[in-house]
Amino acid sequence: MPIITLTTDFGTRDGYVGAMKGVIARRAPDVTIVDLAHDVPPGDIAHGAWVLSSSATEFPYGTVHVCVVDPGVGGARRAVIASQSGQWYVGPDNGVFSYVTERATTAWAIDMAQLGHRVSRTFHGRDVFAPVAASLAQGEPATRWGQPCQLAGELPWGPRPERMGRIVHVDRYGNLISDLPRGEAGTAVTIEGHTLALRGTYEDVAPGELLAYIGSARTVEIAVRDGRADTRLNVTRGAMVKPVNDAGPYR
Amino acid sequence: MPIITLTTDFGTRDGYVGAMKGVIARRAPDVTIVDLAHDVPPGDIAHGAWVLSSSATEFPYGTVHVCVVDPGVGGARRAVIASQSGQWYVGPDNGVFSYVTERATTAWAIDMAQLGHRVSRTFHGRDVFAPVAASLAQGEPATRWGQPCQLAGELPWGPRPERMGRIVHVDRYGNLISDLPRGEAGTAVTIEGHTLALRGTYEDVAPGELLAYIGSARTVEIAVRDGRADTRLNVTRGAMVKPVNDAGPYR
Amino acid sequence: MPIITLTTDFGTRDGYVGAMKGVIARRAPDVTIVDLAHDVPPGDIAHGAWVLSSSATEFPYGTVHVCVVDPGVGGARRAVIASQSGQWYVGPDNGVFSYVTERATTAWAIDMAQLGHRVSRTFHGRDVFAPVAASLAQGEPATRWGQPCQLAGELPWGPRPERMGRIVHVDRYGNLISDLPRGEAGTAVTIEGHTLALRGTYEDVAPGELLAYIGSARTVEIAVRDGRADTRLNVTRGAMVKPVNDAGPYR
Repeated sequence: MPIITLTTDFGTRDGYVGAMKGVIARRAPDVTIVDLAHDVPPGDIAHGAWVLSSSATEFPYGTVHVCVVDPGVGGARRAVIASQSGQWYVGPDNGVFSYVTERATTAWAIDMAQLGHRVSRTFHGRDVFAPVAASLAQGEPATRWGQPCQLAGELPWGPRPERMGRIVHVDRYGNLISDLPRGEAGTAVTIEGHTLALRGTYEDVAPGELLAYIGSARTVEIAVRDGRADTRLNVTRGAMVKPVNDAGPYR
Repeated sequence: MPIITLTTDFGTRDGYVGAMKGVIARRAPDVTIVDLAHDVPPGDIAHGAWVLSSSATEFPYGTVHVCVVDPGVGGARRAVIASQSGQWYVGPDNGVFSYVTERATTAWAIDMAQLGHRVSRTFHGRDVFAPVAASLAQGEPATRWGQPCQLAGELPWGPRPERMGRIVHVDRYGNLISDLPRGEAGTAVTIEGHTLALRGTYEDVAPGELLAYIGSARTVEIAVRDGRADTRLNVTRGAMVKPVNDAGPYR
Repeated sequence: MPIITLTTDFGTRDGYVGAMKGVIARRAPDVTIVDLAHDVPPGDIAHGAWVLSSSATEFPYGTVHVCVVDPGVGGARRAVIASQSGQWYVGPDNGVFSYVTERATTAWAIDMAQLGHRVSRTFHGRDVFAPVAASLAQGEPATRWGQPCQLAGELPWGPRPERMGRIVHVDRYGNLISDLPRGEAGTAVTIEGHTLALRGTYEDVAPGELLAYIGSARTVEIAVRDGRADTRLNVTRGAMVKPVNDAGPYR
């Protein structure tokens, strides 16, 4: 049974998520709908991109992932379908698929005229992305919905500087997740003037202490055991993390 | 496979939603359970009513919608089943079905004695609405649960004044959703002393600017691009929205 | 179709829940995944234990309940499978199963080496508990994953004192749920200097008034009608509730 996953910034207090589920259930009754996350901060495209990156690729071949973090809905940005490594992605071409696609990813620009119904200007989740996802999940070809195109959306930061990492996500616990891969991390990193030896897990330090470790994304993370690293360091997305390569004094 | 949807003010931190799902799964193993929204503000019946109104009718014919926003649980209000336009509704008769039912909607008053088990005074979601929904989803008749009745619950505001709208919902983004239909909106509206020309979508104004537009419910909405209209205008539910019909200076 | 339920402190804004669902969907495509609650306060084991206690036992025989409230992940605490009254439980042995298991519950210590893949130190939900739950839901024996053991995790409070109750959970509404069973409650209780007669439901008192009643867990609860008892009484988990047995003046 094919799966459609939903990732949105709609929250769980309005009818928007339910409307999308209704459209999918009506058009593709045999599809399983799976919630990934609906409390992406409103309009935070980079946050939504990270959610997809940390979960979508775990799903079976052929899964359709709909992501609606779409502050530009109804405006100039395109609605797209993308196919990468056996997963389908449907949503706005605003950078939200940056981590799960590549420059060469096959994509299609959705032609609203193919939908055959009135499309609102402010709720493409219900009117565009849900029907297209239902169609893909039932095995219809992406070409039904439009012409091939190249993904244009980008996150507001360039490629990672050499031998450095950036904080790319702050999670619910206040953990700081960087894009510095395990292979470049060495044995310690610095962030905001703090030098932190890489540990294995939270219990390797005392409660309330800062630590760095290789997280579940296989990159460097910074946390406070039983606390929040974001408030402790007063750090947000974009902060730099640097590996320490000399034999200097580790903390 | 029939669907049961859940809309509650139970939140997502306690076991109340899970208990309802367990009861349904045990009694109707072939039913698909779909979460609509669980973060309806505690006891906010009008909010729950709007959630249903914006999502329930998208579902396939025969879907059973359970709504538990029920501050009067165990008291005088009736527990009801309602059938409207091919959808089933199960919950308290406190006005929460106002937007999805009509005066002539067929309804049944649930007789607790038919349940055959002990019913708590404070958790009818688990003890009454879940079992009744499971029964309906499996094709049992509503008459099994009680006598026909007329819905009595009402929202705390009367019919819409002529040629005006009220703000009936404030969504997660702080958007103000009115009940002024597209056909009566004209080309501009006033709210709290602001006159706003109707736009197509958020990107038609600069970031941080107020705008009015026809929303996904096909009524007038007020928003701030990349911001919150509720805090900007200091407006809550019940505020008036009036169409501007002369050729005066639009903003 | 077997069911796997998920209870976590992962929230609904990150990719952690989605990653677990992906792993389960890939390994056990026929299993139904059901969300119980994901907004357990971070690291609050007793809160997670209460969520399970108030919902897990409602599910059909053979359901697998995964609970990831796991501040000690990757450290000394064991990962376990437990079987009690026809339900399976999978998660950390840190006390989170205290309310749904007994001293004699059959349990197995999960041997990571049996997993056959790299296991992160900080995300056992994805790397350990999801694959084990998928296996159990498909009918594989628990003995595949490790040796029998006795559950060691405990909540940070001992057995209930004789003829008293403690507040064991504060729910979304600010209701105070105690472990004083209905049979010991008598007709009134005291909490923090207030004496409260047992009522039937919220509407038995005026809006804004405190009340005690037998809640859906069949124990004494304290609430404020249309308000919050936790802030009114400035009470948190652990506060004492005592039955009043004399014929003294009830409130």
